[in-house]
Order: sequence, then C-alpha cells, then structure tokens
Amino acid sequence: MNLLERIVKEIPPTDRETLRASRERLRNQARPAGSLGLLENVAARLASICGTIDVRLKRKVIVTCAGDHGVCREGVSLFPSDVTRQMVYNFVAGGASINVMARHAGAEVLVADMGVDWDFEPDLPIFHKKVRKGTSNFAEEPAMTYDEAVRSIEAGIEIVDELNQKSPVHLLGTGDMGIGNTSPSSAIIAAFSGLPPSVLTGKGTGLDDEGVKKKAKVIEKALALHRPDPKNPLDVLAKVGGFEIGGIAGLIIGAAHRKIPVVCDGLIATAGALIACELCPDANRYLFSGHRSVEAGHAYMLKHLGQEPLLDLQFRLGEGTGAAMAMELIDMATRILSDIKTFEEVAIADAQS
Amino acid sequence: MNLLERIVKEIPPTDRETLRASRERLRNQARPAGSLGLLENVAARLASICGTIDVRLKRKVIVTCAGDHGVCREGVSLFPSDVTRQMVYNFVAGGASINVMARHAGAEVLVADMGVDWDFEPDLPIFHKKVRKGTSNFAEEPAMTYDEAVRSIEAGIEIVDELNQKSPVHLLGTGDMGIGNTSPSSAIIAAFSGLPPSVLTGKGTGLDDEGVKKKAKVIEKALALHRPDPKNPLDVLAKVGGFEIGGIAGLIIGAAHRKIPVVCDGLIATAGALIACELCPDANRYLFSGHRSVEAGHAYMLKHLGQEPLLDLQFRLGEGTGAAMAMELIDMATRILSDIKTFEEVAIADAQS
Repeated sequence: MNLLERIVKEIPPTDRETLRASRERLRNQARPAGSLGLLENVAARLASICGTIDVRLKRKVIVTCAGDHGVCREGVSLFPSDVTRQMVYNFVAGGASINVMARHAGAEVLVADMGVDWDFEPDLPIFHKKVRKGTSNFAEEPAMTYDEAVRSIEAGIEIVDELNQKSPVHLLGTGDMGIGNTSPSSAIIAAFSGLPPSVLTGKGTGLDDEGVKKKAKVIEKALALHRPDPKNPLDVLAKVGGFEIGGIAGLIIGAAHRKIPVVCDGLIATAGALIACELCPDANRYLFSGHRSVEAGHAYMLKHLGQEPLLDLQFRLGEGTGAAMAMELIDMATRILSDIKTFEEVAIADAQS
Repeated sequence: MNLLERIVKEIPPTDRETLRASRERLRNQARPAGSLGLLENVAARLASICGTIDVRLKRKVIVTCAGDHGVCREGVSLFPSDVTRQMVYNFVAGGASINVMARHAGAEVLVADMGVDWDFEPDLPIFHKKVRKGTSNFAEEPAMTYDEAVRSIEAGIEIVDELNQKSPVHLLGTGDMGIGNTSPSSAIIAAFSGLPPSVLTGKGTGLDDEGVKKKAKVIEKALALHRPDPKNPLDVLAKVGGFEIGGIAGLIIGAAHRKIPVVCDGLIATAGALIACELCPDANRYLFSGHRSVEAGHAYMLKHLGQEPLLDLQFRLGEGTGAAMAMELIDMATRILSDIKTFEEVAIADAQS
C-alpha cells in the first residue's frame, strides 16, 4: 500500500457532539435564529473539526502550488509559460497579489514548485517538489503518467506534514500558479460531470470569445482522445490534469488527515479539491470554499462538491487570493460562535450587575 | 437655512485625478486586468474619496442607531419593543453580535439613542439624541412630524462631527437596532420605488408566511392613508420612517460632508441611505454597501442606489454586523491598490537584485 492509499483510509471523523453543541449555542444567542446565515454553518463545522467551541485559528498558511502546462502550445492562454516562473520569484519577493492579501489576513504564503519548467536555485525558500518540468500537451498525449499523478498528490500530503511538524497549522489555504491551468481544470470538471466543455470553459486570464471557443475545442478533443475514467480520479488527473492540481489535491487530503480545516480558492484549486474528494469523500468535511470565481466551470465544481462559497467578488486571479480573503470571514465565524452571548448569559450578566 | 439644508449644499466632490491614477495602477499590476473584481472598484473609489493611492483606514467606527416603533402595536414583529432597550444595554456591555464582529474587524462600536421608549441613565456611554420615545403607529397617524424628521437627520450629522472632533474617523459603519423597524424600511423603499409592499416585505426576525402577508397589508394601508411624496424624502421619513432611520441618513450625510467613506449595513441602514441619497445625491459617492440582506426589499434598495454589495452571506441581523464584516474587505481593498506591484515595479526589482 503506498502513502496515498494509506492516508486516504486514515482520514479521521469530525466531532458530532461538538457540532450539535455549536448549533445549539448559535440558536440560543441573543439574536434572531439563523440571522448570521452562512457563517453559522462555517462556525459549527470548524468547531466539529477542531473538537471545541472556542476555535482559535492562530497559524494560517497559504500554499501556492506552481506548475507548467504542455497544453499551452495549443494557444489556450494569453500569457507565455515563462510567467509561471517569474511569478514564483515574485511570490518569494513578497510583491504579488497573494502576498499582499495574505499579509492582511495574517497568513503566511509558501510556494511549492510542483512542476515548473525551470531549474530553481536549491536554496530558494520554496517547497522543492518538482514532479517534472511541465506536463505533456494533453491535446496529443496524457498530461502525465499514473505514477506522476500519485507522486504529485503525495507531494502535497508531504508539504502539510512538513509544515505542521515545524509548528501546528490551524487553517490552510490552497492556491495555484500555472499559465494555462484553467484548461486542465475545466477538463477535470468535464470528466467528472459529463457536461460539455463548451459550458465549462471560461476566458482565463482574458481570452476573447473566439479564444474561449478554441480552448473548449482543445479540451473536447483531449477528452475524446484519452477518455479519462470518472470513477478513477487518478486517471482523470493523469490524462488531463496538472502537477499543481495534484499538489493541491494532496494538500487537501493531507490537511484532512491532520484535522486541519482547509480553504479552497477558485477554479484551479477547486479542480484539486474535486480530485481529493473523489479519491477520498471524507476530505470534503474539512473543506471550505473561499469564493465563487467568474470562471464558467467553477459553479459546476462547487455544485459537484456540495459547497457554498463565502465570497462572490468576481475574482478570477488564483494564487490563493480568494482563500486569503475568505480566511478573514472564517476567523470571524470562530468569534461569532464563542463570543456572542446567549439570552441566558445576557440575563445572568444583568442579574449580576 | 437650517443645519441640514446647509450641509446638503456643502458635500465636497471626490478627487477625479486620484480615481484615474488608481484605475491606471490597478490595470498595470502584475496580474490579469480586472482579476480582483469588485474590490478594484472599491479601492479606486476609496482613493478618490481620500485623495491618495495609499489609503490608511486606521480609525473605524460603527454607530448603531436605536429607536422604537409605534407600528409594533399592529403585531408586525415577533419580539416585544422592550428588546430594543435590552439590546442597547447589551451593546454597551459588549456582548452582542455587533460588538464581537466589530472587535474582530478592529472597529469601535458606539450606540445612539435616537428614539428608544426608555429613559436611559444620563451617564450611560451612548449618544443621547432621543427625538421622542418611539414613533407613532403609522398604521393610524404619521410616524413623526416633519420637524422631528429633520431633527433625527441633524442628530446623525452631529454624531459624525462629535466623533470626528475627538479624533479623525477614517471609515464609518452604520447599524440599527429597533424592534419593528423592517416595516418602516420596507415602507420607505415602497414609497420611493412605487413597487407594491407585498414584494418588498420580508420575514424580519422570523415571521411566518401569514405574518409577512399581514405586515405587507399594514404597510400598504399606511401608504394609502398618508401618501408620502417620493419627491420629498423628509415627507417619506416623517410619514412612514423611524428615528433610527433618520439618524442613519444623518450619519451618511455627515460622513460625506467630512469626506469619510461610509459602509452601509442591511435593510434598515439602507433605508437610511435612501433618505440620505434622495436628499443629497452626492452622498452616494461616499457610500459602500456592505452586504446583501435576505430581506426582500433590500435588493430593490440597492438597485435604487446603484450599489453593488460586497458580501452575500444570507445575514438578516442588522446592528451593523454586515458593515463590520465588510470593513475587513474594504481594508483589504486599500492594500490591493497600494501594495500589489505593477509589472514595471517587478521588473525594476529584478534589475536591482
């Protein structure tokens, strides 16, 4: 049994008794029942993951997984693949969108090279987990081998363990960087849902209508060529996925294994979540959807996962930016549960004053 | 000319040159153009209000305006009017939802008695601005006189000035507390939009379908009885409004007058925003909508104002809770504009390293 098979079997259950107690406390707080909407459910789920009503999310980390894509040779992106590497350096230098937004949310940002087409200096402070220097062009051949697919997921699991060993992680966010990676993401939801790529394909970094049509055709042909098996998520990842998408799937499975709540970003990160939850449905109990991307396929992914996103700010950036924004709301949810007084507590305070 | 008439004429313009420079900077940042969606517009608008690209929102304050409603005698709310007073004490004690959420957002909470049916101790640390101990039952007579309507708005303006004199306020949030106050709020949007109360009336703190129908009928009859003039917002406020709604309108006008960006909460606060912006359309340039309430009338109010809310978390609480949540996103927007590097800045950093 390999690492992945073992971990998938070891995902622990969440705490039902704390879930029940949380729901009861929320219901008894001095405000109309249900009046804090989605945040009430987030609060109760976090409590059941952490086994306490007083959840404290001190250490927040966003891991941004980077990889390149052979399918870029089909002209599916406005940006050249070089940008993937440049952005990795920009993340390390701290000036990218995700750095700015994570800083505000009180989260660390760490980058993982899952498969960038570049030799990074060994002392560059990133997770060096390169599976290969970019996937193959899935318009012509499978993006990766089955073993590479397993390897990419296991690398994500390793990252969580390495991070968590240094100091416990309380909230993990997943992000991506990879020019061309909306194409494999749309292909993955197409494979699982059976819906046509034409409804699942968006403009990515800014394609025009003609470009979107061409991209959908590339995905359609690749699915017809490789026929990924929706019952076998590793087959889907191998044939039309990406190394950073596998890495994100591993982060989610690894987080669930360590009982760490994990916030998903947009289209690409949610493609990773689909792989993770198809492999391991129990991982979904540890997963929170940060935001709804404007990318066409994302709504279908969320529906497939039964997830309701916290934000809908018309983002289409990736990097983990939607996860960073959502971390502030998730933190707020923990305070709502523990700090808002119940009618009974208010009455007691009145009697004592 | 009274205070209100004078202030309305003195609302200063926002800075167009900074707006243009902000939009240009956002467009040149090292990420796909427009990829941070709604937050880009928030960031540019804040910059144009504050006259700088590097906006720092240090002092954030939420003012929760409280008032009672004669229309409660028609059975339009599940809770008794006593709860308004109890919640004011709960706010002062720091254990209510708005206290918890504002604390997390780094904002102060201050309460204004605009018209609660209770004699608060003079040394209770709230703004003592009582116009009268609760409105009249607008099912039978106008909620207040024309002079009381003016007085309630002027009180809101005074609160901003008093707050700002102590130490400059950088971001103001508006909140409400008043059992029965979804009824006047729905009546106000009905008066301005001409739409039937049946589509603008929601369940408030938790009415059933029968209760909602009855509430809509009460509003319908009141509008038929008083015929508020939609061209005269003071007439609308006087006939079917509330003292806390007038206070909120004053907060918004006062904030615009002092060039302070102001975040609106849900149904009741947005009813105040309608009064403010109908009296003084320029105030809308200083206004941000924090969230979309589940209350039926709120979407129509936002449409009337041309405002896009930042959050849609299915809240229906009031107190300023939606404004508090949104303050975190608004703060994030300021960092996005100033701190994310442009392609040019990234290239310069590369050349220097």
